[in-house]
Formats: sequence, C-alpha cells, structure tokens
Amino acid sequence: MRLKSSLISEHNAKLSSLHQKKLEYISGQLDQSGFNPEGIIQKISDFQVAIPSWALGTGGTRFGRFPSGGEPRNLEEKIEDVGLLHALNKSSGAISLHIPWDIPEDYIKISNLAKSFGLKFDAVNSNTFQDQSDQELSYKFGSLAHTDANIRQLAIDHNKGVIDHGIKLGSRSLTVWLADGSNFPGQQNFRKALSRTLDSLRSIYDHLPDDWQMFVEYKPFEPNFYSTVIPDWGTSFLLSSKLGHKAYCLVDLGHHLPNTNIEQVVATLMGEHKLGGFHFNDSKFADDDLTVGAIKPYQLFLIFNELVYGMEGANKDDAPLAWMIDVSHNVKDPLEDLLQSVEAIKLAYAQALVIDRDKLEETRENNDVARAQEILQDAFRTDLRPLIAEARIRNDAAQDPLLLFRDLKMRDQLRKERGSGSVATGL
Amino acid sequence: MRLKSSLISEHNAKLSSLHQKKLEYISGQLDQSGFNPEGIIQKISDFQVAIPSWALGTGGTRFGRFPSGGEPRNLEEKIEDVGLLHALNKSSGAISLHIPWDIPEDYIKISNLAKSFGLKFDAVNSNTFQDQSDQELSYKFGSLAHTDANIRQLAIDHNKGVIDHGIKLGSRSLTVWLADGSNFPGQQNFRKALSRTLDSLRSIYDHLPDDWQMFVEYKPFEPNFYSTVIPDWGTSFLLSSKLGHKAYCLVDLGHHLPNTNIEQVVATLMGEHKLGGFHFNDSKFADDDLTVGAIKPYQLFLIFNELVYGMEGANKDDAPLAWMIDVSHNVKDPLEDLLQSVEAIKLAYAQALVIDRDKLEETRENNDVARAQEILQDAFRTDLRPLIAEARIRNDAAQDPLLLFRDLKMRDQLRKERGSGSVATGL
Amino acid sequence: MRLKSSLISEHNAKLSSLHQKKLEYISGQLDQSGFNPEGIIQKISDFQVAIPSWALGTGGTRFGRFPSGGEPRNLEEKIEDVGLLHALNKSSGAISLHIPWDIPEDYIKISNLAKSFGLKFDAVNSNTFQDQSDQELSYKFGSLAHTDANIRQLAIDHNKGVIDHGIKLGSRSLTVWLADGSNFPGQQNFRKALSRTLDSLRSIYDHLPDDWQMFVEYKPFEPNFYSTVIPDWGTSFLLSSKLGHKAYCLVDLGHHLPNTNIEQVVATLMGEHKLGGFHFNDSKFADDDLTVGAIKPYQLFLIFNELVYGMEGANKDDAPLAWMIDVSHNVKDPLEDLLQSVEAIKLAYAQALVIDRDKLEETRENNDVARAQEILQDAFRTDLRPLIAEARIRNDAAQDPLLLFRDLKMRDQLRKERGSGSVATGL
Amino acid sequence: MRLKSSLISEHNAKLSSLHQKKLEYISGQLDQSGFNPEGIIQKISDFQVAIPSWALGTGGTRFGRFPSGGEPRNLEEKIEDVGLLHALNKSSGAISLHIPWDIPEDYIKISNLAKSFGLKFDAVNSNTFQDQSDQELSYKFGSLAHTDANIRQLAIDHNKGVIDHGIKLGSRSLTVWLADGSNFPGQQNFRKALSRTLDSLRSIYDHLPDDWQMFVEYKPFEPNFYSTVIPDWGTSFLLSSKLGHKAYCLVDLGHHLPNTNIEQVVATLMGEHKLGGFHFNDSKFADDDLTVGAIKPYQLFLIFNELVYGMEGANKDDAPLAWMIDVSHNVKDPLEDLLQSVEAIKLAYAQALVIDRDKLEETRENNDVARAQEILQDAFRTDLRPLIAEARIRNDAAQDPLLLFRDLKMRDQLRKERGSGSVATGL
Repeated sequence: MRLKSSLISEHNAKLSSLHQKKLEYISGQLDQSGFNPEGIIQKISDFQVAIPSWALGTGGTRFGRFPSGGEPRNLEEKIEDVGLLHALNKSSGAISLHIPWDIPEDYIKISNLAKSFGLKFDAVNSNTFQDQSDQELSYKFGSLAHTDANIRQLAIDHNKGVIDHGIKLGSRSLTVWLADGSNFPGQQNFRKALSRTLDSLRSIYDHLPDDWQMFVEYKPFEPNFYSTVIPDWGTSFLLSSKLGHKAYCLVDLGHHLPNTNIEQVVATLMGEHKLGGFHFNDSKFADDDLTVGAIKPYQLFLIFNELVYGMEGANKDDAPLAWMIDVSHNVKDPLEDLLQSVEAIKLAYAQALVIDRDKLEETRENNDVARAQEILQDAFRTDLRPLIAEARIRNDAAQDPLLLFRDLKMRDQLRKERGSGSVATGL
Repeated sequence: MRLKSSLISEHNAKLSSLHQKKLEYISGQLDQSGFNPEGIIQKISDFQVAIPSWALGTGGTRFGRFPSGGEPRNLEEKIEDVGLLHALNKSSGAISLHIPWDIPEDYIKISNLAKSFGLKFDAVNSNTFQDQSDQELSYKFGSLAHTDANIRQLAIDHNKGVIDHGIKLGSRSLTVWLADGSNFPGQQNFRKALSRTLDSLRSIYDHLPDDWQMFVEYKPFEPNFYSTVIPDWGTSFLLSSKLGHKAYCLVDLGHHLPNTNIEQVVATLMGEHKLGGFHFNDSKFADDDLTVGAIKPYQLFLIFNELVYGMEGANKDDAPLAWMIDVSHNVKDPLEDLLQSVEAIKLAYAQALVIDRDKLEETRENNDVARAQEILQDAFRTDLRPLIAEARIRNDAAQDPLLLFRDLKMRDQLRKERGSGSVATGL
Repeated sequence: MRLKSSLISEHNAKLSSLHQKKLEYISGQLDQSGFNPEGIIQKISDFQVAIPSWALGTGGTRFGRFPSGGEPRNLEEKIEDVGLLHALNKSSGAISLHIPWDIPEDYIKISNLAKSFGLKFDAVNSNTFQDQSDQELSYKFGSLAHTDANIRQLAIDHNKGVIDHGIKLGSRSLTVWLADGSNFPGQQNFRKALSRTLDSLRSIYDHLPDDWQMFVEYKPFEPNFYSTVIPDWGTSFLLSSKLGHKAYCLVDLGHHLPNTNIEQVVATLMGEHKLGGFHFNDSKFADDDLTVGAIKPYQLFLIFNELVYGMEGANKDDAPLAWMIDVSHNVKDPLEDLLQSVEAIKLAYAQALVIDRDKLEETRENNDVARAQEILQDAFRTDLRPLIAEARIRNDAAQDPLLLFRDLKMRDQLRKERGSGSVATGL
Repeated sequence: MRLKSSLISEHNAKLSSLHQKKLEYISGQLDQSGFNPEGIIQKISDFQVAIPSWALGTGGTRFGRFPSGGEPRNLEEKIEDVGLLHALNKSSGAISLHIPWDIPEDYIKISNLAKSFGLKFDAVNSNTFQDQSDQELSYKFGSLAHTDANIRQLAIDHNKGVIDHGIKLGSRSLTVWLADGSNFPGQQNFRKALSRTLDSLRSIYDHLPDDWQMFVEYKPFEPNFYSTVIPDWGTSFLLSSKLGHKAYCLVDLGHHLPNTNIEQVVATLMGEHKLGGFHFNDSKFADDDLTVGAIKPYQLFLIFNELVYGMEGANKDDAPLAWMIDVSHNVKDPLEDLLQSVEAIKLAYAQALVIDRDKLEETRENNDVARAQEILQDAFRTDLRPLIAEARIRNDAAQDPLLLFRDLKMRDQLRKERGSGSVATGL
C-alpha cells in the first residue's frame, strides 16, 4: 500500500487555518524569548528515527499474544509499512533489519523497494537468543558467552553474516544485544563469561568494515533472571573500550534497574564519546516496551536535554547517533503506536531545543537551583506541537498522521490486502 | 513581613500586556475545544493547599543541613511566612501545625494573626518519632505500637493533646504519621504491633470531635529500615476501616515502593470513600521530599486525573480532601521551593480539568487505547500557565510569584529581620 | 513410568550409615536445646505441597523457549510426573490443574490414576489470559474486568466450568489469577474496572460449593505493564472481604514490587484470617519464577516464621493453607527443579520449627533487638537437612531424591517413552 | 576499659565441652567431603575487618537519634572500644579514622595506644559532606565537584590533610566518599561535574605516597536525591582507571539500586583488578546500614564466593582488599551490632571456603545448572559456626563474644566510666 500524496494534501488543507493560527502564536512567543522558530522547525524536519522491522506486528508476552490482522507477512511488506509511516510523518526514513527474520532474497530488489519509499537501512540486528529450526547447536545456555567454543563460533559466524547482509543493503552498523546470562547463583562464572564475550565480540569487530560501528547493548535481566553478561552501561563501556573506536554503547530506555538516572548515563557516555545508539520506548516496571513518552515524558525530555547538549559538543570523529524505536504493541495497532512514539520523540527533541542553555549554564555555575529548574520546566511546559506539525507539512507529510491513518482506515485496507490472520515475525 | 499590595499591582501591571496576549490565545483554544476557560480559572482560584509549618526552614539529611538564614524563629514568624506565600499566590491559605514544635502561647493572638493573613488552620500533626527533652519514656522502640503500655499511653495522650490544640485554633483534622516499625527481622511481632496500633488509634479516635477527621498515613521505610507498622495503603485502609467513618487514609507521594502505580491507589481509595488527605512532593528514589512536579510531572497529572474524577463523584458525606505540601528544601530557599510546588500542583490540576472526560470514557469503553492516550496527552501538553496566572491576578496575587519574591529580595529582608543564623524547627 | 520401591530402598540403604550419623548429631543438638526432633520429623513428614500441572514442562519467555524433551504430553503423563516426584519425596501429594489445558476425558479414570500415585487434586486454576482457538470473543482487553458484558460473562462461565471440573475430581478450591489491567495511562477507568471485577467474582463465588474456597491472586505487572486490576494484597483483601468468608487472598512470592516486606504481608493477612494460599517460587527482579529458595532463602525462612506462628493461632474456622509451587524452569530439568523447590520449602519450614518462640516473644517484649536477631539466625544457621532426609526415609521416599533421579537416568527414560520433542502445555 | 584475659579463659572453659563436640562433628564432616578443617580455621583466624571510628556510637536518621549512653567521647575511647571488640573476637584488628572527627593531638600516644590493643590504622576517611564550624566556604553545593574552584581547593586540601594524618599513623589508604550531586533536574551539568571531580581527585592522587591506595566510593543517592556525581561502579571505575594504578573502586553493600546483582559487580571489578575496598552492611530498601547479614545472608555468601575466587587469582601487584564494616546502629548497642556484623562476615567467608570449586567449575562448563546450585547451597547450608568459634578460641578470644559482652555487663561499665549521656561523633 502506498499513500497517495493527494490524500495528504487534502488532509493538510482541511486543518490548515487552525494550524496556521497556532503556529503563528508559538512562533511569536519563541521569537520573543530569543529563539529562532525557523531553525527549530528545520532541525525537527531533519530528524529521523529508524523503525525496527520487528515492531510492525502485534507484540506479546509469555502469557499470550493477540494479533489483530493486516500485519506484514514478509520483508517487502515490512518495508511498505515503514514507507507508510514515513509518508505520514517524514521522520521514519530508515528501517532496521533483524536477521534471520529479514534476509532478503534479492538484495537489489529490496534496496530499490526501500529507495522507492525514501528509506535507508539502519543498524542490522543479530539474533542469538533463539534457536532457528535448522540449528544443530542450541543457544539455551548462551551464545557469545557460551562455555562451548563451537556454540560461540556459531554465534560469531551469525553476527558476521549479519554484517554481510547489512553491507549489501547499505547499513553502517551492527547492534549486538545478548540474552546471555544466568538464571541461578552459581550457574555461570561471571568473569569467564565476560572474558569469553569480549573474545567473541573481538572476532565480530574484526569483521566490521572501517566505516561501520558496533553497538553493544546492555540489559539487567530478561530472559535471564539472575544475571546477564552485559547488565549495565559500565559493562558495555568496558567492552566497547577494549574493542576499539568503532564500538559504542547502546542505551535502551527499558534496560535499567528501578530509579536509574538514565539521563546521567547518557551524559557520561557522551562525555566519553562512547554513546552510539538509542532504543526508544517507555517503561514503568521493567523492559515493558511501551510507546515512547507514554509513562515518563519528563525523563524523555531530560534525556534529550543531554543529547542536544552532547550533539553540540560531539567530537568531529564521533559517529552520528543511531536513533531507533524499540517498542512492543500488545494492545495497540503497531503503526499507530509507532506514530505516537515518533511524535513523542520529536516533541522531547523540540523541547530540548528551546532550553535557554546560556542561562542554564549560568544558573548552574551560581548554584541557583530553583532557577535552573524553572528554565527546564519552562521549555517542557511550552506547547511546541505546532512546530512539529509545521515541520511535517513542509516535508509533505501529514499534519496529524494518526488522524489521517484512521480517517483513511489504513489498517482495514492492510487487513484486506494481507488477511486478518497475518502475523509478522517478531516478539 | 507583610507584602504591600501596591507592590503586587505594580508587578502585575508590568507583565500585563504579554500576559493578556497569552491568556487570550489559550482561552480561545480551549473555547474551540469545548471547554469553558472562565470555569477553569474559577476552579483554580478556589484551590487552596496547606503549607506545613515545618517546611519553612532548610531541610536536611542525616549527613548534614545547610541553612541559609532568615528562617522563622517561632510560630508567629511561620505564620508570617505562609502569609507571605499566600499574598504572593493566594493558594496557600492554610497552615498545618506540628505539635510540640508549634504550641501557641496565646491561642487568640495566634488565631488573629493567621486571620490577618487570610489563613486557616489545616490538619494538626502529632510527633511521636522523636523524644522531647523533658520526656521520661522514650519512643526509641515505637510509640502507638510500643510493647510497653505506658509508652503507648504517652503517645495516645500526646495525640489527644494535639487534637485539643487544634480545636482551639479551628483545625478539623489530625494527621497521624507513625515512625513505628523495626530495623531487623525478628525485632517485632508484626501482628501484635498492628493490633496494638489499632487499639491506640481507637483511643485517639474516641477523642476526636464529631466534625473532625483522622488521617492515617503510611510509609514503607525510614526511619525504620526493615518494616513499618503501616507500610502501605492496604494497612492504612485496614486500620481506617476498623476505626470508623471519621478515619481516612493519607497518601504522601514519596511513601511508596519503587514503581508503585500511585494514581491507581488514589482511585481505589476514592472508590472506597477512604481517601482523606494528600501530602504533595516528588521523589526519584525514596522519601526524597523534592519540589512537587520536579521529577515526575506526568504522574502528578495522572493523580490529578483521578482526583478530579473522584471529586466529581464524591459521596455527599465525604469530607473534602485535605491537600498539603510536604517537601524538604535542602538546597533551595524554602519559600521559593514552596512557590514552585504550589505552581506545579495547580498546573496539574488545570491540566486534569481540560481532559475531555466524555470522550475518554467512550474510548475506554471501546478499548481504543491509542486514543485514550491521545486524550490525556493532549491535556498534559497544552500550555495552561496563563490560566493559572490569570487566577492569581484576579485574586490580587502576583502574576509571577517567584519573580516578585526575587525582585523584592524578600529573603534578604527576612535575613535582616531574623538574622542570618536563624533556623526553623523541622527536619 | 512408575518408580519401583526397591530402587528407593537400595538408594537409601547405600546412604544409610552416613545419614544415621548426621541424624544422631542434629537430634542430639536439638534435644539439648529443648526441641523434640521426633515431633519436627513428624511435621515435615506430614507437609505436602501441590505441584501445578503447568510446571512439568520447560518454561520460556517472550524471547524463546528451549525444551529438552520427555515432557508430559497429556494429563495422564502429568499425573505420572507428579507421581514420580511424590514417590521420590513423599511431599508432593497433590496436583493443581489448569483449565482448559487439563480437562479430563474420563474423570473416573483420571481420579483412579491419581489415587494410584497417592495424589489428591488441589486448587483448580482458570485461564482467562489467553484466547483459546475456538473462542469467538477475545480476552485481549481483559476478562472479568472487561468493559464488554459478554466477555465478562464468557470469563465468568469459564470459571464456573472450572469449578465444575474440580468438583468431579475432588478439588476444594479455585484460584483466580487475572491478567486484566492496562498498558497505558488512560486506557482503563480504574474504579469501574475494579467494580466490574468484583461483580464478576461475585457471580463465580455464588457458584462455589459451601466447602470450597476461592483464592484471589494479586500481581503488580505482567502481562500488563501500566496497571493490573488486582495489583497488591490490599486490593485482593478488599475484594475477598466483600466476597465473603469463602474468599481468601493468595500470595505468590514473585508478585510484589521491589523490596516489599512479604513476610509482613503474610502476617497481616493471617491476622485477618484472609490468607488462603501460597505460590512458592523465588525472584530477583520480577515474576522470575525461579526455584524456591534459590535467591532469597532467608526471606523464605522469615515467611515460614510467620506461617508457623500463624498456623498455631489459626481460627478454628480457617481453611487450611493451600501450598503450591509455581516456578518456570527455563534452563533446568522441570522435575529436578521441582525437587529442589520442595526441598527448599521443607528446609525453611523445619528452620521455622526450631525457632525458640517463647524466648523470641520475650526478647520482643523487651525490645532486645540483637537477641531477637540471634534467635532467628540461630534457627536459620542450623543444618537441619538430616531431619528432612529422615522424614523422607520414614515415608519410604528417597533420602536424596535428586541424586536418585539422576542415578536412574529418569529423564532419559521419559524421553524414550515420550519422545525427545514432546512439549507440555504451559507457559 | 580493658578486658582481662582471665575472663575470656573462664568464659571459654565453661563452654568448652559442648564446643568440642560440635567442632569434632563438623571437622569430621568436612574431612569426609575432602576439605581441610584446619586450613579453614587458619584462614578464619587470619581474617581481619576494620572498624570505623564512627560506628561506635548510636546512629540516627533525619528524624532523630536515640543514644543510650556509654559512647566513646574521644579518639582514645574509640580506640578502646575497638580494642574491646578485638579482644572479644580477634578479628577487628584495625580502626578506620574519620577526619576531622578523629584528629589526634599526639600521634605517638595514639599510635602506642592502638598498638597496646593490637590495632592497626586502616583507611583514613575524609569528610566533605558537612561544614565544620570554622569553615568559611560551604559544601552545601558540593566539594570536589563544586563549580567554585575555591571550594574544590578547600576539599582537595582537606583530603591531602587526611592523607598526612594517615601517614603519621601508619594508614596505607584513603577512602573518598563524595556526597556531591544534585537534588533537581537541571541543577548540575553532569559532564562538567564529573570532569571537575576527576581533576580534583587527580590533585589528591598526586599527594598519595607510592605505597598508598585511593578508594573511590560510589552511591546512587542520599544525601542528594536526583543524582550523585559517582552513582555507580561504572563511574567509579571510569575515574579510577583515569587516575592510575593506585586508585581502586570501593563497594559499599548499601550503595546500589534495587535488585542490583552486587556479586557480579564484585566479580567484574576483581577481573579488572580494580576492586580495592569493601564496606560491609546490609539493607532492604536503601543505604539502611543494617547489621551485616541481617537481611540477605545468601547475597553476602555469594559475594564472598566471588571474593574468595578473586583473591585466589589476584594479580601479584594487587593491593590486598581493605575490608571495613560500615553500619549504623539505631536500635542496638553499637558494640553488640559490630560483634554480630563481624560474625556474619566470617560465617560467609567460611561458607565460601567450603565451596567445592573444582566441581563447581565443572558443572558450569557443562551448564549443569541444578548441580551448580546444589554445590553453592550445600556450602551455605552447612553449619560452620564451630569453626569460627574455634578460630577465636585459638586466638585467645571469646568463644561467644556477644554472650560474654552481656555476661560482663560491659555497656553498663562503659556507662559508668563515660556517663549515660555520652554521645560519639558520627552520623
């Protein structure tokens, strides 16, 4: 399914006069406060966040899964879905593939298909947390950290293969998330497991092209419930440092212990030039994979405060940050959920752009705590949605993507095309 | 120190034209969305939140305290401070006293003083977590839950005395927060301790005038670090139910285990007509007592969503909710912190007032999850600060209380009056 | 597969002399400390904990599942597995069925089969967290709390049906665990959802035979990640109280927020005569469903401290506590995991039986905190394993069940019988 | 007060025959299992854990403090108290001083006093979390991380001074715990604060003698409640790595977010040769500073499992680990609490010594998870208290130190000597 641009124009035309009024107001306000609304609109326009191929179907838990049909049945349809999102919001111009779920049969055809939707291929993702049906050795007790060298080699080779797939599609980075860990005290020799992991990662690292990055993800628990081999940013940093300048840490917002100050982790990693990628989602309890900004929007804003600050000061050599959404839509339409997630990210980004940084640094130097809080809250409380809508409109995207998605009954159309029983690969 | 009304008028006049423009805009927007801005302004105008007498000085931790002078040295000066706050924002029209720190020498004089500032006396608070210098028996091992009947009686009598003080000042409720608990497994017989607490509370309850309420607070830990006698809302509810219709639960936002869904607790208690009072603050880790809305403003909004919904459906017989701020200002000026806290509360309240409740209920009935989220986020993302400023202006308070407080160098004045070494009673 | 008693005798004979020496030693020690070792052995002998039918296969997470074969393929084989456990430890004399996974085709045949292994039928469990293949209406958005009366009725009827199955097998209780809840703020009207749940439970309650109990389970999150309808003991208690004297709360050790003092919850519920059942497991982070005692054995002991204390003081009318294991074996052999779990439970029980309760109460009355700790730690640090082994030997079970299970290569035998690809129903 | 050795002999003689029986039994058991009881007794005998000077008085919280008299009034009496502990258990042969609370007037006299009790001087501790009465600049907004270079210099000079005091007493290490952080989002520029801290630490590091170590402690919150400059092991590791080979991380058991796998942190730090010191205590919620082993004894054992494993494999160049107790005794006699803490540490150490490491590694290599758990649990469940008592007896310490402390009414004696109102410096 491709979205006709005329439908977008019609949608935008209908909402235009109300939007103009709002835009004028907020532009005037920002102007008065010394900000340049045009510059902010431009930055929002340029902002792109990748969509993972596994987020296009209904997610589930160990207790069950309730798909509602119309899900993409193959890589082509996944690209179509992301194309649809990108047509609606012009901020989802990349897809992140998951191997082995998304192995193209014809790379050129797939590349052209993506190009036709204006999509790039973002980080490729390996999978060593599940056994494939044809797999002789099992990842039950780990992959890159396994005690058995043969299984480690299997996992290493898989990751190298993932890089090879990525090269053919124009990806520039590999994300490694390891489920490796242990469920019980005593099960694993922590130090040996970490050391084996480093060795395995080194083999993969050596296979990386020069202009690639490797992102090392961390997570404190699940699917292992006593320990994981890379539980926290410290361990990810340790590994990335030993691996070399192409290795970076990847922060997933749902992969932290309760009460972690994630914005500080982001700041520290940026300070060390070791923040490579970001998996956006939201959570209340654990790795809940909820819509971005649905639970803790202020935390999201504080994280963007660090990101914006860090990006301004980034090393020349730093790779650009790889942004990706990583949510699971158990009770929402996946495409609607993704539209909401992208919107929340752009809102937080915009809010971080209207922080008066000079004044903020001044109040910090003076330890004027109340005033520093006022400056952040002022930015957060300002209603910047018209700027984000304007950025879309200028990009020929929909002013209100979710509304248009519903007005056009897109999911119904997809269900007709793909069947009401279609289920996408994913979790 | 009394704030001259002319200073407020001048302040407001200066900011008037910019404010008018913002007010017009947001009023128009709300109008268009089917809300009545005048009604909302009125509700915000009417909203009052009590200031605890112990929040007027610099707070501290077990590691130290860094007061910065000008703190109230006695009850009269505490009333003056709250009077100052009330003059600035006209939303702090009540003070909540803590006995024995705030025992008046002359009740009539104190009453008149409060009246002269437009202040009422909110809930009175007892203190059985510290030993007073003249106290023979110790609360080291508890008070209302103590194994020793004499110590329980001391604590009961103290609470009765607190009620008596409150009666003389026109208070209508007693808040009981118990530090009782244990630091080590085995220390306390849980069931006996709870049973003794119930008996003690019954004695106090019997002393309550008919038109009074008793608020039973809960807290999971600190100053006891293994168990507390009333750790959670369930225990508070159990006790309140057994005590009778004058007993209610009190929710302090910082008194929950990590990740607790506090808004749901509020909803459940309101559904049972057992929510009596609220201690507002914010926290990231524990009972951090930070400025309201400083860490989790969306949670605050979700709580107000329940409060507004509950207040609309409150039983005729329900006592009005007792709102109080309970923060500790370790690194901010106490009065500035309180101004920020009141502002955050009113903002969350206003946001909850612009939730489209009919549509929300409709989406809930249809399990349209994405749309329900949109409705809440739309209210939260709307910039309602001009309405709150307008409510203040109409009440002859300052449009920007914090700004005026600073412009007038009020803390410097207080320091001159009271000395730079003055320290208020409190924690 | 049935375990020949001669194999057990041979096993026990081999280990006998070493065991006798240990038994003599610890019996002498206990005797000297004023305990009656024979009485303790008898209590351990009598102790039975039910095995859930869904714990006989390899468990998994949303990320995958790694079964290792030989799992029971039907209800008959599940009963066989529990029969095997019971033959090995004589403490697993009951099976808890899950409907619709375990609907018997022939009740009499199934009853006789269970009887032949010395097994009873414990609580029956309903399932409204998954859709069955033939189900027209979906539980995607809830069951007993659903907004749609038809779906609620479906779930009510299912629960009534579960009771009916249970009646035919001699069960005496129904366990209701609800996955109902919400993933996002706004999705659910908390108060209406709770009220609908109460109404639904009432319909089910009315269907309960007079000598049955209903257990209302609580859980803070998963599979819903923002709220659950029954998140905590307080809500379970509220519902059970309103339902009536046949309704009780059920505590699952993995269903609490971080740092919850579970032993205190147990104490409070026992004090209110509302503790009905227990799901044993262990956890570090969330509902990890790990082997009992694998992570926090001291907490388990403290819980048994309350249970033993409470059982001594139970009301005449109180139903006996329903004990059940509820673990998920992702990386262990399910039967081995269950043997370890039962052992850990009995060890904690035995330790709680050698607490000097008179002295403990005395130290508590005197607030001799250090001594109270000593008393508990003394019981916990005593090595009581010989008593547990002895209880087994006297019941003609194996002295070391895990060792015998391995020596006889039982899993290999089961794999031969059932195939290496057999997978049991469950999570 | 000095404990007469004859009192110890009498005490030991009285308990001797029962002890001998227990010792024989457990020695026989261990022998049979292939362990050498004599070797274990020797290791326990050699084990020493330092006592901090601030743990000799009653601790408190921000809500209050309930001292019970007889506390040491000066450094001499603190040394006496530790001397008493050491006489009782011969495992507390070092005192850790806190500056400025413990500045000696006469170094030689103090050194000789300590020597007379068999005590060494362990790590010296600086204090930049409180303002001293004569201090012109304030640590209210930080010390080594402060925005003001003058305040940083003050804190640097203080730390250098602490080193100088330590040199005169024979200490070999400095522990730096920083309270620096922020209470509110926006207050602090995370990256600048971390960078300033590194610079400050470098200045201090340069002042360290060659044979000294610097321990960098981390803590996630308190007394700052939004962020701390060194919140986790990752940050401590980052700093220590940049500082150089004399800088190490210090782990305090109460300084972690909920559910942290501390034993894994210990393993990782040992693997990097960057674990320098340990502060023992226990906690349920936060930095509760409870008696070691009182809440999570199995976690303590798992930590010792790593420590024992790590010490066996330590680099030749590694500094020996600095062990210290860091507890706060709010409701117990400080000396009794310390005796219990030392006992718990030695018990965990002994249990870790009877882990069958060869078998454990073998089961790990084979991913025999159930067996690995059995091996750890077997060690933990074995009652090794007689070995610990024997180690004491051979060192001329008391078989049951707590019992003797009580039998001799030592606290009463101290109260007589020092007064019932004496209060030690500390928290």
